[in-house]
Amino acid sequence: MNVGDHPTAQTHAHGTVLTSAPQDAPVDRATAAARRVIDAMLRTDRGNANLDRVAEELNSIADHLEEHAPEVAERLIDMWGGEGVTRHDPVTGPENAIAPPLVLAGLEDGSVQGVVTLTLPYQGPPGCVHGGVSALILDHVLGVANAWGGRAGMTAQLNVRYHRPTPLFEPLTITGKQMSVEGRKINTVGDIKTAAGDVCVSVEGLFIDAAVPRPR
Amino acid sequence: MNVGDHPTAQTHAHGTVLTSAPQDAPVDRATAAARRVIDAMLRTDRGNANLDRVAEELNSIADHLEEHAPEVAERLIDMWGGEGVTRHDPVTGPENAIAPPLVLAGLEDGSVQGVVTLTLPYQGPPGCVHGGVSALILDHVLGVANAWGGRAGMTAQLNVRYHRPTPLFEPLTITGKQMSVEGRKINTVGDIKTAAGDVCVSVEGLFIDAAVPRPR
Repeated sequence: MNVGDHPTAQTHAHGTVLTSAPQDAPVDRATAAARRVIDAMLRTDRGNANLDRVAEELNSIADHLEEHAPEVAERLIDMWGGEGVTRHDPVTGPENAIAPPLVLAGLEDGSVQGVVTLTLPYQGPPGCVHGGVSALILDHVLGVANAWGGRAGMTAQLNVRYHRPTPLFEPLTITGKQMSVEGRKINTVGDIKTAAGDVCVSVEGLFIDAAVPRPR
Repeated sequence: MNVGDHPTAQTHAHGTVLTSAPQDAPVDRATAAARRVIDAMLRTDRGNANLDRVAEELNSIADHLEEHAPEVAERLIDMWGGEGVTRHDPVTGPENAIAPPLVLAGLEDGSVQGVVTLTLPYQGPPGCVHGGVSALILDHVLGVANAWGGRAGMTAQLNVRYHRPTPLFEPLTITGKQMSVEGRKINTVGDIKTAAGDVCVSVEGLFIDAAVPRPR
């Protein structure tokens, strides 16, 4: 990912918040509610007799939202203004219902860190986080770590190692840290740990310093 | 991922369908509608005056679905019966609203393949697929390729290379193929190509043959 001028300056008890925390705004509330629907849809009884009515209601909401949507090209310009992708990305974005969302803070030692509990939409093996979801989260966290480290870039290579199953329904600590910059090459590492401190997944990423133009 | 006895035998013009295609069932229709809401929420005008009413309606739907949900432990047993994770995973699951969903077919040459067009919820750089989303999709596809190849396992290592930006709003061809099995080690490769045949992302995965018990 390219995070551009990603870090926003918000002070936080445990560091500087780098992601866009949910705000008291209608779109954030609507997205949080959509997130509840995604989760509850996986949990509800398959014999629930009202699922067709639920489908009708959701389609009616989608119709309404689409009727009030600008053209995608125009929407992209708006999305990438201000806080940019931090409000819309699939990992930390409060306005993206597929994001858990993860909130990340930048620490004084140069690392970025956040805690997240994942539920059924993110399942791979029974009761465990999907290995690809771990890779998605770590890729994003390394990008934010680069921004916090001062040099951001595009992902060139990602080496993900799976040490043990990553549990659902438990707080997971996600960490990323920029380790070195040589010319345009940026090396960044990260991991996902259980509350007990066991490393479930670790990652090494190679990024190339390259600016991506924002839509306008 | 562990796919267990994943492949289901459905014939398809271009191979054998390995994923669980959307069915004419209420839960599939409701999930498809939730997917429309996720996408439309990112596209709708931020000044849409009805977003608080949308939030209320979505919360009301979530309340209803939750009231009709069994305990998670009980639900897990049900989820993992029959077609198992193929109906619920975050990449191919028709019952998981965060899945695009990708439909995969097993080909005679031993590979698995599917075509998917991704939209704003999966965005990383402007107008492009998030690098972590590509990793998520490829991890899953390698798992299905292993099942199709005859030996499934848990992901041990994933090496993802990014060759060029992966476009949103265009059909992408996703391919996976099991290359070798040495003892318990399984080597599998895959990639994401544009319609023009350009490789955007490639992956090499090492999997370890290990059965994961299903909840019961």
